[in-house]
Amino acid sequence: MALGIGDDAALLNVTPGQQLVMASDTLVAGVHFPETASGRQVATRSLCVNLSDMAAMGANPRWFTLALTLPNDKANAEWLADFSAGLGDIAKQHDVALVGGDTTSGPLTLTLTLVGEVPVGEALTRGGACSGDGVFITGYLGDGAAALEAITNNNSLHRASDRLLQRFYCPEPQIQTGLKLRTIANACIDISDGLMADLGHICKASGVNAVIQTEQLPIAAEVRELSPLDALEWALCGGDDYQLCFTVAADQLAKVEALIELGELDACRIGTINPSDESINAVSVIDKNNRLLTVEKLGYNHFGH
Amino acid sequence: MALGIGDDAALLNVTPGQQLVMASDTLVAGVHFPETASGRQVATRSLCVNLSDMAAMGANPRWFTLALTLPNDKANAEWLADFSAGLGDIAKQHDVALVGGDTTSGPLTLTLTLVGEVPVGEALTRGGACSGDGVFITGYLGDGAAALEAITNNNSLHRASDRLLQRFYCPEPQIQTGLKLRTIANACIDISDGLMADLGHICKASGVNAVIQTEQLPIAAEVRELSPLDALEWALCGGDDYQLCFTVAADQLAKVEALIELGELDACRIGTINPSDESINAVSVIDKNNRLLTVEKLGYNHFGH
Repeated sequence: MALGIGDDAALLNVTPGQQLVMASDTLVAGVHFPETASGRQVATRSLCVNLSDMAAMGANPRWFTLALTLPNDKANAEWLADFSAGLGDIAKQHDVALVGGDTTSGPLTLTLTLVGEVPVGEALTRGGACSGDGVFITGYLGDGAAALEAITNNNSLHRASDRLLQRFYCPEPQIQTGLKLRTIANACIDISDGLMADLGHICKASGVNAVIQTEQLPIAAEVRELSPLDALEWALCGGDDYQLCFTVAADQLAKVEALIELGELDACRIGTINPSDESINAVSVIDKNNRLLTVEKLGYNHFGH
Repeated sequence: MALGIGDDAALLNVTPGQQLVMASDTLVAGVHFPETASGRQVATRSLCVNLSDMAAMGANPRWFTLALTLPNDKANAEWLADFSAGLGDIAKQHDVALVGGDTTSGPLTLTLTLVGEVPVGEALTRGGACSGDGVFITGYLGDGAAALEAITNNNSLHRASDRLLQRFYCPEPQIQTGLKLRTIANACIDISDGLMADLGHICKASGVNAVIQTEQLPIAAEVRELSPLDALEWALCGGDDYQLCFTVAADQLAKVEALIELGELDACRIGTINPSDESINAVSVIDKNNRLLTVEKLGYNHFGH
């Protein structure tokens, strides 16, 4: 950057030919992460979650500001050093610079505002899905909800593995995948509220419906074993996965399947975009016998919007 | 903007040839404004204070995000309508667009992040003051501190006038003046912490000293009358004025004095930049008899940094 922290504002050089992508997210202790989370865990989760919005737009993250509200018991050198180290690690990993912010006293709350760049006209949005598109998801679904369950009810039955803790406190923002998808995907969103809700956002913005097949959902073996009864609901309705859900036009499907086969894209197909039909739910779910699963059965109505 | 609220992030078109200016500020109820402030007052103060950072950089404000944490007693349609109307009025006045944000539940706190534009290389910074520069201030000093005193101790002796309430809840961001100063000022800052502290920031960043003459300080008649004993301290050390303090090179002084004379610049000269001298305070204050006023006498040491 041209001028960083220390003046009234930061001065930043935009790359010619790029549009800006800007997003803000607030995380509150006890709501978005447990009160017991360490400084490092708070920092890494907050920055990763915010970077995920950049990934969903196909943007290259560049700069961020941090507004940090700290309670007295955390306003000490030790907590701040742990926090700063975590923030620095993720910022370095994704080449994004902290350019300003503010600290105040109060209950632990963080607001991050990220600004990224995307070539003019190439941003991924929620509004481009078309009937006939394939629906894809990166990585695994349900990890976020399984981790939250294990952290919240930490006992011998639901022990949070290192992998699940990592998925919760350091969810890998899919930045590189987002960049690749610019020329591949018709629509894209990151899974923060749960697949049903977030794919629903794509359907609403694009004026289409979607159908998801349960046996194609990528659910980690660990999550299936943790609670076979809950695994499907976590995958469909749990939030906090921060994977990308995207749609691909019919004539691009072979190319995307080839990229997946070659290991150049960590994703799998989970469904199809259909024409709009207001007489049914925007997102339908069918099992391997093509039976429609109802909202009530899946219990995801309390995630509805 | 190209795409606003409703996707994962906002998509913004930067004007070619411009650098970005980015700043974040948090305001907390009971700290930065009274708990009793109305929704409109909270909104206008928050946005004006943040716009002031753009003015200090000579930037043209373009976009902002708002992270709003609301307590239950304010999460209702009436409070939000009042808040939104206030925010909308200031945003419209300065042609700045709300492009995203987040709402959470908790003690009333606002974090605004503004992004503005400035032609490459023309931003005003704290670091350009040179020995021989004149020191100028826009508008009046001490209004912010007088208003805070009147609001905090609201009685028959210290009644907050409509003018002072307006200065506190709706401090006029000096955007247009900031734009004019791009080609005039060597250094610039906005007065948020008080003249002594903020001019001190210019001195530190520029490696110079400054001397201020008390009889040249622009103090409103109302403030002098409110408390003749306090007026000088409010002007020197009170925060919340959100005026611009700037320095002008010796060979530009006649031009600036002419602009002031013509009414094209609402500012007045209050002092001079001197060479660095570490044996004395960076900012000295002298009275009309050229007597040096000491730090202790003025009582501004608790604003020190």
